[in-house]
Amino acid sequence: MINITLPDGAVRQYEKGITVLDIAKSISEGLARKVLAAEVNGQVWDTTRAINEDASLKLLTWNDQEGKNTFWHSSAHLMAEAVETIFPSVKFWVGPPVDNGFYYDMDLGDKKMNEDDLIALEKKMNELAKKNSEFLRKEMPKAEAVKYFTEKGDEYKLDLLSNLKDGEITFYSQGNFTDLCRGPHIPNTSFIKAIKLTSIAGAYWKGDEKNKMLTRVYGVTYPSQKELDEYLLMLEEAKKRDHRKLGKELSIYTTNDDVGAGLILWMPNGTVIIEELEKLAKETEVAAGYKRVVTPHIAKENLYLTSGHLPYYADSMYPPMEMDGEKYYLRAMNCPHHHKIFDAEPKSYRDMPYRIAEYGTCYRYEQSGELFGLMRVRCLHMNDAHIYCTKEQFAQEFKAVNDMYLKYFKIFGVEKYVMRLSLHDPAQLGKKYVNEPELWLETEDLVRKVLIETGVPYVEVKGEGAFYGPKIDVQIWSAIGREFTLATNQVDFAQPRSFKLSFTNQNNEPEIPLIIHRAPLGTHERFIGFLLEHYAGKFPTWLAPVQVKVLPISDKFLDYANSVSDKLKKADIRCEVDDRSEKIGKKIRDTELLKVPYMLVVGEKEMNENMVAVRRQGKGDTGVKSVDDFLNEIVEEVKERKEG
Amino acid sequence: MINITLPDGAVRQYEKGITVLDIAKSISEGLARKVLAAEVNGQVWDTTRAINEDASLKLLTWNDQEGKNTFWHSSAHLMAEAVETIFPSVKFWVGPPVDNGFYYDMDLGDKKMNEDDLIALEKKMNELAKKNSEFLRKEMPKAEAVKYFTEKGDEYKLDLLSNLKDGEITFYSQGNFTDLCRGPHIPNTSFIKAIKLTSIAGAYWKGDEKNKMLTRVYGVTYPSQKELDEYLLMLEEAKKRDHRKLGKELSIYTTNDDVGAGLILWMPNGTVIIEELEKLAKETEVAAGYKRVVTPHIAKENLYLTSGHLPYYADSMYPPMEMDGEKYYLRAMNCPHHHKIFDAEPKSYRDMPYRIAEYGTCYRYEQSGELFGLMRVRCLHMNDAHIYCTKEQFAQEFKAVNDMYLKYFKIFGVEKYVMRLSLHDPAQLGKKYVNEPELWLETEDLVRKVLIETGVPYVEVKGEGAFYGPKIDVQIWSAIGREFTLATNQVDFAQPRSFKLSFTNQNNEPEIPLIIHRAPLGTHERFIGFLLEHYAGKFPTWLAPVQVKVLPISDKFLDYANSVSDKLKKADIRCEVDDRSEKIGKKIRDTELLKVPYMLVVGEKEMNENMVAVRRQGKGDTGVKSVDDFLNEIVEEVKERKEG
Repeated sequence: MINITLPDGAVRQYEKGITVLDIAKSISEGLARKVLAAEVNGQVWDTTRAINEDASLKLLTWNDQEGKNTFWHSSAHLMAEAVETIFPSVKFWVGPPVDNGFYYDMDLGDKKMNEDDLIALEKKMNELAKKNSEFLRKEMPKAEAVKYFTEKGDEYKLDLLSNLKDGEITFYSQGNFTDLCRGPHIPNTSFIKAIKLTSIAGAYWKGDEKNKMLTRVYGVTYPSQKELDEYLLMLEEAKKRDHRKLGKELSIYTTNDDVGAGLILWMPNGTVIIEELEKLAKETEVAAGYKRVVTPHIAKENLYLTSGHLPYYADSMYPPMEMDGEKYYLRAMNCPHHHKIFDAEPKSYRDMPYRIAEYGTCYRYEQSGELFGLMRVRCLHMNDAHIYCTKEQFAQEFKAVNDMYLKYFKIFGVEKYVMRLSLHDPAQLGKKYVNEPELWLETEDLVRKVLIETGVPYVEVKGEGAFYGPKIDVQIWSAIGREFTLATNQVDFAQPRSFKLSFTNQNNEPEIPLIIHRAPLGTHERFIGFLLEHYAGKFPTWLAPVQVKVLPISDKFLDYANSVSDKLKKADIRCEVDDRSEKIGKKIRDTELLKVPYMLVVGEKEMNENMVAVRRQGKGDTGVKSVDDFLNEIVEEVKERKEG
Repeated sequence: MINITLPDGAVRQYEKGITVLDIAKSISEGLARKVLAAEVNGQVWDTTRAINEDASLKLLTWNDQEGKNTFWHSSAHLMAEAVETIFPSVKFWVGPPVDNGFYYDMDLGDKKMNEDDLIALEKKMNELAKKNSEFLRKEMPKAEAVKYFTEKGDEYKLDLLSNLKDGEITFYSQGNFTDLCRGPHIPNTSFIKAIKLTSIAGAYWKGDEKNKMLTRVYGVTYPSQKELDEYLLMLEEAKKRDHRKLGKELSIYTTNDDVGAGLILWMPNGTVIIEELEKLAKETEVAAGYKRVVTPHIAKENLYLTSGHLPYYADSMYPPMEMDGEKYYLRAMNCPHHHKIFDAEPKSYRDMPYRIAEYGTCYRYEQSGELFGLMRVRCLHMNDAHIYCTKEQFAQEFKAVNDMYLKYFKIFGVEKYVMRLSLHDPAQLGKKYVNEPELWLETEDLVRKVLIETGVPYVEVKGEGAFYGPKIDVQIWSAIGREFTLATNQVDFAQPRSFKLSFTNQNNEPEIPLIIHRAPLGTHERFIGFLLEHYAGKFPTWLAPVQVKVLPISDKFLDYANSVSDKLKKADIRCEVDDRSEKIGKKIRDTELLKVPYMLVVGEKEMNENMVAVRRQGKGDTGVKSVDDFLNEIVEEVKERKEG
């Protein structure tokens, strides 16, 4: 008998050689039908592989990323089988799962593939999937594998083989298709219920433009047609909500070749959003006892040698400016400057916790191929802060940070989120991780407790902590269900030491503080990119660049329109008058396109009675009311930051 | 007879050979007693020199910088005469006027000068001044001058002579002192009524450390003892108000060697002031129809080649960051980025004037020897904006900018200021100045009219305009009478052309806009430096980093103190509680030192009656009042930005 330890710590005994699938069945038949793969002693395995010794076991389903990856990887094999039926002379390179689906790179010889072929392939894949073919794993000696592909004349698989060692070579087959493959795979093809091949692209072999151009086919599959339909709908909606498209239509930002790639120029409309976000951050942080600072965006090399960012992080930084024997760097992070502020005056326990915040500007030299709208840029404005605290204060401080995230999620209507707690790996202490085993365990435990106490959804990932302490990545989902990485919190034991930071404790001794790095609103760039998609550009009133547009029915009512606008502006409402000599219908249509939350239509009746006819963006006419009533309502809506 | 044209355009006729002094007398005896020198056809002359042909004439008095310079230059000669009586073997190098006084560099051979000598020298100078000796000008052929100094064995004056041409060599004598000198000088020594020699320093000959060290004596003189006393008092007060001293005492800012010289780290107290200033600027600018933008602080070389800043301005910029075949520069000015925002979307006459504002961060590589506290730094946050307007809109836009300055002066209690209007020189059109003669005259005239209409004090300076248009430097005086350059406005014809900016005018044709560059609050660095001196660190309540400190008489009243503080904080008042277990006297003294505007002392009586005992900084006890009354008063004071 062998002992199988489940994630909740329970240990079950089974016969040696039992498969994951059988274990799943022993727990529940329903569960067994959902299991796609399993983590056995930390490695992802086929469900059909025999377990011959004591092991820890985690069953992987569609809800686990590794479950999805296995599903999509198997789907790539299914697609390859279908391709072989239509293009028998095809040779395959690699076919991995990706963020949303899978692809396979292939050499079609002198054949070409077109959109019609994709439809035929989908049909064939559906047909093959229904055959319920098992994915069979077979180990093979290297010599035999080389012989096999040499005879087949497959230079691609031979190339892959050349990088593999004897004893680690496996093949997987399903139906009539066999592939050199590390696995793992799902039990059989019938799991794949819904298939969409999304696009054909060219891809140089090994990404090198000197090599042959292969054909890359992208696809996505789901365990049900409903889920696939939802996903495709989301994609369509995401296209409409593309932040680059909306960013241009709504005059949020621009870029310019003479300024440089990835360097965002925030236009007046984008700047309104920036300023509202900073106002929110300032209010929230001041109330939470933070103080604010302003620091320069450059520093001498030595600062980053002390912090340890140089030389390790140099590739992500702009190159230095060298002058008068000094090297100045554009900063890629704000922390070292903040440490110098902490250190500028002696601190005592009375000053702790010391919390300093700054919407700090950082520069990161992302590769030009990686740049993407507001999501991947070279100049970032970060909602940064650093909390210097004692070990005793840590849990409370960390909880306050967590609460701040939750407060923001509520304001922005973020309903789905998860905190990804990255821990250290004890085997790597002193190498990948600063060698403070007790502090690691202690703070990891404190962080975990806070996450449990506040009841936020969280997952733990071993061996992904930062060098200097546990890290919490915050993932959020937009209104249409797309996932974004918002921000990262870090607990830091190392920098206080390298910067020789200390405070005088109650025993009049110097003590080293802990640091929490946090940035709940992430960067303006990424967060506004997220909000554009999240709101489809229809910002809630408090964030909208123009909150109200007054539309006079004709020029006769322009003076009245201006008087209404002036009144609103005096109450800090962002209001404009459409003073063009256009028909009211056109004025309404144009204003709808600009996604202004409120339109106030004014004509004879409204002017005489000091009223406005209110139209809500996307909702149409909502009735006539007095200017004062409208003003009071909108001021309240803005003040409360209502979602609208 | 010759025609003499006075500054107001009046032409007077005089005999050929008349002196400035006689002309002054012909106007008024009182005026003649004040005339120190004169500008004759644009050159500064002695008042005693004969005028032999038609000329334009401006009499220079103590109120003109050139008048002062002449006075101080003559004072240097007077000092030299006194030095010769005490150190007969002295040899002189040069003795120019400086910002506030004059110095003379001298070789005392094996003699040394000390503080006591300064007192003796002052005494001797007073004695010599009273002799009423005239300053006499004498032209001399070069050969004769060389002979004179060769015989005297004066290698310094021989060195000066070697750089002069025959025909331009003049000597000046007064009393027993004669010096090689270009002049001009005041009529006679009796004008010098008050003398203070301020310091002795060493100075390498010609500033080269390989040369001999000369003795430099600094002094300052005034036409009356009262003015000198006021000046010395101001100096003493300025020392107490030194912004570097106050900046440290009040925790406003810090710098750090690892970050770099001239790079200010704004601490929490300084950041409060920055944020209040930005709030003021934003309010004011939004009300004036500006929109706000946020732009990156770097750009590619090409942007600055287009703007013309490169290569001419390269010495003042940080060196480039070179990567992937591109050169990126830290920006030294914001305008090119703003032009790109203007140009990001097509503009029509309906969009004009287009005003965009940003507290833009700029970097200028000042020489390390020039760096000085907040006054001369390498990273600046500038209250910048650019107004793109039509020629017809220009006067109104420029007037609005001017009004904004006046509004700010009122808020900050700046009572003395002058606008220095720098004009082009027609002879330099197409060389030093962009070749648009009509636009120059037209905009200069528009600017002048606005300055006259608004009645602000202004002076005109020919030939000091920027390359691309007239420039207005704004000089302000602090409460103790020190002069600061606050900001510069510029009218710009050139950049709209080089950036190919245009808008569609009402005739549906492309038209080039004019640009006004303006920055009424200057830079945070310089303005906060000014404010520290101006207020002696005692900021008005709206600007004070901490506005209220609650001082419980003993720990028993700490809870009540905290409840008062919480109430104030909820109304956005920056309030702290002094929760130390110190005697109330010490709490008051410490808070006075931190220059917190209000102290609220709370004890038994206050707690029982929900009152506070109010102390105003520097004014002591101002009575007991209810918390609500105090709250209403301070909220009003802050809202109105009262001077306090």
